[in-house]
Amino acid sequence: MSFDRLIERIIELKNPTVVGLDPKLEYVPQYIQRRYMDKDGGTLRAAAKAIFDFNQAIIDEIHDIVPAIKPQCAYYEMYGSYGIKALQKTIRYAKLNGMFVITDGKRNDIGATMEAYTNAHLGTVNVCGNEIEPFASDALTVNGYLGTDGIEPLLNICREKDKGIYVLVKTSNKSSGEIQDMKLEDGTPIYALMGDMCEKWGADTIGKYGYSAVGAVVGATYPEMLTELRKRLPHTMFLVPGYGAQGGGAEGLKGAFDENGLGAIVNSSRAVMCAYKKEGCDERDFAKSARREAIRMRDDITQYINLK
Amino acid sequence: MSFDRLIERIIELKNPTVVGLDPKLEYVPQYIQRRYMDKDGGTLRAAAKAIFDFNQAIIDEIHDIVPAIKPQCAYYEMYGSYGIKALQKTIRYAKLNGMFVITDGKRNDIGATMEAYTNAHLGTVNVCGNEIEPFASDALTVNGYLGTDGIEPLLNICREKDKGIYVLVKTSNKSSGEIQDMKLEDGTPIYALMGDMCEKWGADTIGKYGYSAVGAVVGATYPEMLTELRKRLPHTMFLVPGYGAQGGGAEGLKGAFDENGLGAIVNSSRAVMCAYKKEGCDERDFAKSARREAIRMRDDITQYINLK
Repeated sequence: MSFDRLIERIIELKNPTVVGLDPKLEYVPQYIQRRYMDKDGGTLRAAAKAIFDFNQAIIDEIHDIVPAIKPQCAYYEMYGSYGIKALQKTIRYAKLNGMFVITDGKRNDIGATMEAYTNAHLGTVNVCGNEIEPFASDALTVNGYLGTDGIEPLLNICREKDKGIYVLVKTSNKSSGEIQDMKLEDGTPIYALMGDMCEKWGADTIGKYGYSAVGAVVGATYPEMLTELRKRLPHTMFLVPGYGAQGGGAEGLKGAFDENGLGAIVNSSRAVMCAYKKEGCDERDFAKSARREAIRMRDDITQYINLK
Repeated sequence: MSFDRLIERIIELKNPTVVGLDPKLEYVPQYIQRRYMDKDGGTLRAAAKAIFDFNQAIIDEIHDIVPAIKPQCAYYEMYGSYGIKALQKTIRYAKLNGMFVITDGKRNDIGATMEAYTNAHLGTVNVCGNEIEPFASDALTVNGYLGTDGIEPLLNICREKDKGIYVLVKTSNKSSGEIQDMKLEDGTPIYALMGDMCEKWGADTIGKYGYSAVGAVVGATYPEMLTELRKRLPHTMFLVPGYGAQGGGAEGLKGAFDENGLGAIVNSSRAVMCAYKKEGCDERDFAKSARREAIRMRDDITQYINLK
């Protein structure tokens, strides 16, 4: 099952973190931007090329210490078809370097349309007898508001092709409670209902570490819910955004992990990508600075958990 | 406000329908597929080119009778960056032909990331001082599970640039009730809570027909909820999927409309795109067949409403 591959890499590197590659153009050092802007001018194509170079350099520096990357689709869609090309190349490059790739698309739809998203991001598309992998990612974040019809097409590929999904359960933002914390007639909050669905959806995909191919997104900004949901959803691996920039501290993350230090992977995006700005080092040192921040984050988080 | 433009076009054409352009390759006539496959082979590039030709011919035939198209992102993402290029070209071509474009992406995220989606699909992206419109759509479907943080960035562009959004409220699929029909402690179903949020989010964007820039997706397959929600959400325009192929009949749609025959736009995708298969006409007649089905659909729906 998919998350076994990720979990094995987490154990190997002793590092339950993922670096979010959400490359706003302003994060990309000037010298890389100029490499393309001087030639092409301020075009979507030039921006997309600069972004890929930025990602590539970060992957070069972190792939031996960080198990996974999480590219956020929005920052590639911003640059139209050129941006999507940069996303495809980023995924390919990370995989060539042994990294697990979680595409953060929060996709959702039903039936044949969800199947199209599934085939696009995790599977293959048939064109005149050729089976082509458009994105070839390992996992995809999804939104479960449409119920089982929106998840079923993904489960087939999780079983067949060793892939995984993370369903939004309790997001890290301030207003997440407006819908997610509302209580049902029996007192269950909606996030817990969504979490219970994850356990149900994943039930027949449980791997050797006890986790299924259906994970949940649970924000670092709500430590008490991490603890509560860890107990409630014993087979659901958590993808935890909100560490660092959004204010979630490392100690508060403890509850997301099981007694073996497994069961969760913590994301950091901006703090790693922009480490060179915070450090104030030469911008040409940005990728090494990203590595330093990735190590700091790993050590910050693993001090509180029992990862052997 | 954005939906005023759409509503005016609906009144002008006396047609409250939208054609979903969800071009699965199998829908595209063989003679168009061969135009590219014979040269390029079975590649994503060839598929994307065939799809654009297919869309273009349909737009040519329907733009004078149908007010809007709704391209579904999944069917373009399937073909990677080439597919996204076809999406960009489809949107541009429809707008050049006077059509209103609703991008069906069901996007969702928070803060800066939602802003990136907003700029990508509805707004502009700044690259080195150049303001570029990557997709330049008129409206976007979104998922509100993350609350106000995920909607706020869209509202700014609805106000500034005359754009609109449709939030998933009650979807047309069978399992939509698993989450959406669950009742809160006070008896309110979740879909009604989401609907109430739409009224709140749209409150300061109400246009001259009484509808805000924040619409709701409500499925044709639940006629009683269309009626209930029309009363509950007087300023929220509905985008109604599920007519035809998914089983929702025209009479059941009545409740989605107000006393002037406004307040909703009904989508049909497959029945229009594949009309030539159902008719059994020559495949080279596919676009004219799509037009015939678009007219049949318009007449089927308008017989039950009071659109002047």
